[in-house]
Amino acid sequence: MINNKPVVYSGNYISYTREQLMELVRKTMSEKRFKHVLGVEQTAIQLAREYAADVEKASIAALLHDVAKEQSEEEMRDIVISENLNLDLLQFGSQVWHAPVGSILAKREYGVTDDEILEAIEYHTTAAPEMSLIAQIIFVADYIEPGRMHPAAEEARKLASHSLRDAVRFEITETIKYLVEKEEPIYPSGINAYNAWIGRKNR
Amino acid sequence: MINNKPVVYSGNYISYTREQLMELVRKTMSEKRFKHVLGVEQTAIQLAREYAADVEKASIAALLHDVAKEQSEEEMRDIVISENLNLDLLQFGSQVWHAPVGSILAKREYGVTDDEILEAIEYHTTAAPEMSLIAQIIFVADYIEPGRMHPAAEEARKLASHSLRDAVRFEITETIKYLVEKEEPIYPSGINAYNAWIGRKNR
Repeated sequence: MINNKPVVYSGNYISYTREQLMELVRKTMSEKRFKHVLGVEQTAIQLAREYAADVEKASIAALLHDVAKEQSEEEMRDIVISENLNLDLLQFGSQVWHAPVGSILAKREYGVTDDEILEAIEYHTTAAPEMSLIAQIIFVADYIEPGRMHPAAEEARKLASHSLRDAVRFEITETIKYLVEKEEPIYPSGINAYNAWIGRKNR
Repeated sequence: MINNKPVVYSGNYISYTREQLMELVRKTMSEKRFKHVLGVEQTAIQLAREYAADVEKASIAALLHDVAKEQSEEEMRDIVISENLNLDLLQFGSQVWHAPVGSILAKREYGVTDDEILEAIEYHTTAAPEMSLIAQIIFVADYIEPGRMHPAAEEARKLASHSLRDAVRFEITETIKYLVEKEEPIYPSGINAYNAWIGRKNR
């Protein structure tokens, strides 16, 4: 039986309590987005318990995953340039760049140094050919949290209950299908993730 | 009215007559593929006439476009390495690499030096963000030649009759949809082409 104790931060990964971190995050975004973030956190904690991941890391990564989403384009642009991120990001809009920029902010402004947490934030939109367990959990939680109502989210929820890997692969494939159907740009790194994950199936 | 004179080579782009080139190409491939090549050539000549391109270049590029398709994997691998082509090609199989390798063979073994012809062969599978008129024609002709029966080919044929650009964009988008539906690998350069072409619509 999966334990349901409240998550209490150890101080190993961030100097705030969970409640303090929630309050800081809440101030960076709209009420609607904050509700999404709390949904992602609850889902990530549950997935972490089901898949034997560090629940505290999952909580921190979830709370911080969208921390750059409502930054101004100018602030994000400055960070992309000053941090030597891939300049191609600038052509793909905030939907793509808020993820790597969020990882930078988590480090700079929230003092996070744990690689798994930072990577989970960085890859939460495009995924990556190789992803830590925490990164897989945040990627999936962002897609299936209770506020996500579309049919693909329902399908991903079912997959996530028996295979995190299958849920990641499904989400990557569905996201690219969705973009191509709408003739929306596809960030090239997303294709690297797609090419790596399509091969990961049951034998 | 579009002229229907037989195509006679000038000697400016290749040292063979059209009939000699056909015979050389025929020897490199199966009867079935050669029939496809002749279909592509007829379609490319027609498109060249409709879109004011050089008919001779269209014919040469069409006849040579699949010239590497039935080379052994070893021969192609050697060329990818010796010509400093992108080594990523080796991961994507002959469906992708026969196009850039074909361009090398057209130069090395058939003496073609014209950039438009070489580029048309190089880009005929993945397309590219910018493509010469001949490259656009070969890319589309390969998809709509009379031997292609699938519904998307029929749709592309209709588009090609009024806008070569729309036919190219449609073909790129359909190809990626097809690959994602089947969870097949997507060559990253194909995404660069997709991202460039989705923006090219009627205003």
